[in-house]
This record gives sequence, structure tokens and C-alpha cells, in this order.
Amino acid sequence: MKLGILGCGNWGSVFGIIQQKNDHEVKIWEFDRQRALAVEKTRSNEPFLSGHTIPQEIRIEWEMEKVVSDADLVVFAVPCQTLKSVVDRLANLMCVDKNCLSLIKGIDVETLLLPTQVIAKKLKAEKIFALSGPSIANEIIREEPTAVVLAGRDVSTAKELQQNLSTSFFRVYLGTDMIGIELGGAVKNVLAIACGIIDGMGFGTNAKGALIARGIVEIQRLAARMGTDPRTLLGLSGLGDLVTTSFSAESRNHRFGVLIAQGETVKTATEKMIMVAEGAATAMAVRKLSHELGVEMPICDVMYEILYEHKPPADGIRDLMQRPLKSEIL
Amino acid sequence: MKLGILGCGNWGSVFGIIQQKNDHEVKIWEFDRQRALAVEKTRSNEPFLSGHTIPQEIRIEWEMEKVVSDADLVVFAVPCQTLKSVVDRLANLMCVDKNCLSLIKGIDVETLLLPTQVIAKKLKAEKIFALSGPSIANEIIREEPTAVVLAGRDVSTAKELQQNLSTSFFRVYLGTDMIGIELGGAVKNVLAIACGIIDGMGFGTNAKGALIARGIVEIQRLAARMGTDPRTLLGLSGLGDLVTTSFSAESRNHRFGVLIAQGETVKTATEKMIMVAEGAATAMAVRKLSHELGVEMPICDVMYEILYEHKPPADGIRDLMQRPLKSEIL
Repeated sequence: MKLGILGCGNWGSVFGIIQQKNDHEVKIWEFDRQRALAVEKTRSNEPFLSGHTIPQEIRIEWEMEKVVSDADLVVFAVPCQTLKSVVDRLANLMCVDKNCLSLIKGIDVETLLLPTQVIAKKLKAEKIFALSGPSIANEIIREEPTAVVLAGRDVSTAKELQQNLSTSFFRVYLGTDMIGIELGGAVKNVLAIACGIIDGMGFGTNAKGALIARGIVEIQRLAARMGTDPRTLLGLSGLGDLVTTSFSAESRNHRFGVLIAQGETVKTATEKMIMVAEGAATAMAVRKLSHELGVEMPICDVMYEILYEHKPPADGIRDLMQRPLKSEIL
Repeated sequence: MKLGILGCGNWGSVFGIIQQKNDHEVKIWEFDRQRALAVEKTRSNEPFLSGHTIPQEIRIEWEMEKVVSDADLVVFAVPCQTLKSVVDRLANLMCVDKNCLSLIKGIDVETLLLPTQVIAKKLKAEKIFALSGPSIANEIIREEPTAVVLAGRDVSTAKELQQNLSTSFFRVYLGTDMIGIELGGAVKNVLAIACGIIDGMGFGTNAKGALIARGIVEIQRLAARMGTDPRTLLGLSGLGDLVTTSFSAESRNHRFGVLIAQGETVKTATEKMIMVAEGAATAMAVRKLSHELGVEMPICDVMYEILYEHKPPADGIRDLMQRPLKSEIL
């Protein structure tokens, strides 16, 4: 296959490298012209990717057209909140039907749409697929065993993509519920920030285990209310990804939570991060969504209050622990 | 309340210490006379508990009768495979009805019974309760936030126990499915060994996230076949506990898996551990159970083969990764 990857960040470049090694032809679009030229020349993608270079076989382009024009599959790996503008540019370029694969984990704060829904506003819905699951890019480039899930409306194309994108260490399962999978990938980042806060405050794994067990219930409630299958959220996306993100020191959202616990604000923590922690914006989107839909999400609520309403993290964790004792409702 | 705790290991002694501080009267039974006298005198419970002493208010006894005779609640905190003999001794002593609370996580290898089922062989079933969930004892004694679940047939007594045993940092939820809760506490130790193996082999959090997501499906399949509510396994016991055990460096089962990855056998790894890793025996019990009941549990099967049939850990992990690509069935 010919892959045109939009976004030359951490995940975009790692996905390109493993797929090039997997015998696909790969081009990557970097929106910043200067940066695109530098990466193309030096083969270094610092600061997004350290310790690895991008093989000569992968072209880095700043002109989107050169990346997508002959691609069999357009892969979206840009920050969620910039996706709308990228899709607009793409819609102006695409003369033929292309299969689209989103690797993005987030919710558009303005429209409350998931990435494939944003893409479907301008491109053909039956050509759109999502890939999600526990996929810390730095582990994948070290060829550590990883399993992810891929879904889309067109099951036969999804199966082809599954076969074509799997490698010996990157195992692609087939899912049936694209929206559920995207929801899992998005909301887990809010809970991962919560786990980072717990770590930053010096609390332990008991608290994180409890937070994940209760947190997955919240995600499922939202998923059910949005008409998807809540069981999807117990799979690789949702649960699997939540666990990984919540414990990996290489997760941005986890690191973001640690900074918040250390007294940084969303603004100063964002400045200190090299890469975008999608969970910060997603916390806002989830707050809006859950209130609009009347879904009880106490952990996500507390995260919103900590991030955007100046609640001290210690008070937030205490609030969660000191809710009235009750039954464990699942 | 007056608590008589059977077992002066890590969890038994920590549970006693926090409940004594929670205004209960606590006695602890240590089966080894010499050790009981030493702990009573020095107040040190090394090597099971480091960095903390046992308060003077807690009596350590080697005669079981002195611990249980005036207790309102008998708490079981002995290794799972020794429970039968402890229950036999207790049955000979107990002249009045006592409430019993099991903190034990395992399955009796010989009878394939869960701890409360072993206890119910000799004592009144309606007086038996189980407490489980993510509860690394060393975190609890540091008063780090912890949430657990308690269940039993007699709901009104369960509610009383919930109120009496909760503290500001030790939050007890009420569960409805005692067997499901015990099953979660038992089988998670097998998966925790698997996570330890992954860590010991130098693989990362993607693999652990995937293993946990797929592993919880296995536990749920077994639970459903045994007539319990599979949703229980997604709560604090099961999922919450699995996540905690799989990532905590203070978990014995996790540490046991790391040793196995480093080339130790069950025998030599057990010798190197100070405390019992319940998961090693549980792996054998789960193998028997799943084969008897015809439940597909590929991860637990591979763990059995690694632990008891000399399969090299690297081959086991590879086998799990290289099963035919298929749909993510939940």
C-alpha cells in the first residue's frame, strides 16, 4: 500500500517507520515548511522522536497534495483540535476516493465530535476507519509487543487493513464499534491525567487501580448514553489503553497530570510539555458532553474542576474518596 | 468491634494496625509459637512488614483460642493453601457463632474451592463475608487512598461491617456477588505473574495494557460459566485489583513473574520470595477449573505451561502475540 500520513509528530512518524519496514510506501506531511525541510534533510524528528531516525525511504513533505495524491490510505495523526482545519484542506485536494484511517484520540471541543465524525463532515463516511488501543509510540518503535483495534463501516476493507498493517510485534484486532473505540481513546486521557495527579501527589497503585475500575464505569455510562456498545470500552481501546496510559512514564497525559499535581496550571503545564496532551482539551469536551446528556461522571467532573476551576488537586482526590459510602454499582 | 485476625503476615498485620487505629480491639494469631512471642515482644513483624511496628495495643498470640474466643469478627489472612487446616482448627474451637471475613485471594488447588467456600464447609455460610480489591498492604499502612469491596449473603451485617471497617483513607464499597469478588481476587494473581514476566523480559506498558484487557475477558468467561455475574469482575475486585497488582513493584505475584522471566523455576522463585505468591498455586487451580468447565483461557493456559511445563517465557509471550488475527470478541 501507499500510505500518506498527515502529521509528523511522535505517533505519526513511528507509525510511518513501522509501516515502511512492513513493506509499505510511506510519505509524511508536516505542516511547518521549515520543519518539514529539516526533517527531510537530517532524518531526525527531534523533539518528537528521540533515539531513532526516519529512514531515507520515507519522504517528508510540507505540501499536503504530494502526500495524499497517490496514497491508497490517508492516515490522520494530527492533534485533535487541529483536525477540522486539516480536513478542510484535504477536502479541497482529494479528487478521488481515498480510504482514511484516524489515529487521533480526542474530542473536538467546539463541536463535541469524535475524529471520524469530524472527517465524515467532508469525506465519505464508508471510507473512514479508526485505529486505537494501548499504543505508546516509543514502545512500538522498540518493537515491543503491542495489540490495537481497528474498525469502520466497511468490514471487508477493515479486514484488508488489519492484514496489511499488522506486523509480528504490532497486532491489529478487528472491532465492530468505531465510535465506541474512539470514545475509549478520548476519555481515557482524562483519567490518565487523574492517574498522573495521584502519582504526582505520591499516592500509590491502590488508588490508581480503584480510579481505573471506577473510571471505566464512567466511560461506559457515557458510551451507553451515546448509543454505542458499552462493552467496547472494556477492550483494547478504553480499558487496555487506559491502563497503559495511566502507568506509562512515556504517556503525555500522565506526565501532564504529574505537572498539575506539582502546582502547574493547564497553561504552564502545556508550555512545559513538548507534545500536546490531548486529555486537557478532552476534559473540557467530556464535561460539556456529560452535562448535555445528563451522564454522571464524578471523576471527570473533578478533573475539570482541577484543570479549569482552580480546585486544588489534593481537594479533588479527597472529594472522590469521601463521597458517601455506597454499593459498587457497575 | 473486637477483631480476631488469623495470620500475622503482611496483609493480616497491616489490616490489624489500621483497624486498631480505627478504634477496634485487635488480636492477631501467628501459628509459629517462637515467632508469635518474638513479634509480641519486639513489636517488629519483619520480614513481612518493614518500617512499621505493631502498636502495643495489639496482642499477638500463638494460641488460636485466645484470639477468637471473644472476637466479634474473625478475619482470615492466612495463605490460601493452608486455609483448610486453619478452618479445621477453628471449627473445633468456636463455641458461639462468629462473623467471618476472608481477606484471602486464591483457590484451593485440591478442592478448587474459593476461600469462603472452604470456610463454609465448617462454619455457617450466612456469617461469612469476603473483602477484596486493590489493596497493596504497604500502601495502606502509609495511609494512601484505597478502595475495596465487601460482600456476603447477610446484607445488613455486610453494611455494618462496611461502616465499621472504613476509614478516611480505606474506603469500603458494598458488593453483591461474593463468589465473583473472590474469583476476581484469585485469578488476577495469575495475570499479575504474566505482567511480571512481560516486565522481566523488558517489554512495555502496551503489552501489559493489552494483556489486562484480554485477561479480564478470560476471567469474565470463567465467572459466567461458574454462575456469577461477569460484571462483578469489572469492579474493584477483578479489574481494579488486576491493574494494581500488575503494575506495583510491591506486588508479590508481579515480582514472582519477574523472577520467572529471569529464568527461575517455580521452586527457586518461591525460595527467593519472602512471602507466598498466591498466583503460582492459583495458576494450577485455574488450569484445572477451566479445563473441567470447558472455558477458553489462553493467557492462563500459557502461564500454566510456563510455570509447570517448562515453556520458555519468551515462547509463551510470542504464542500469545501470534495467535491468528481475529476480531476483538468481548
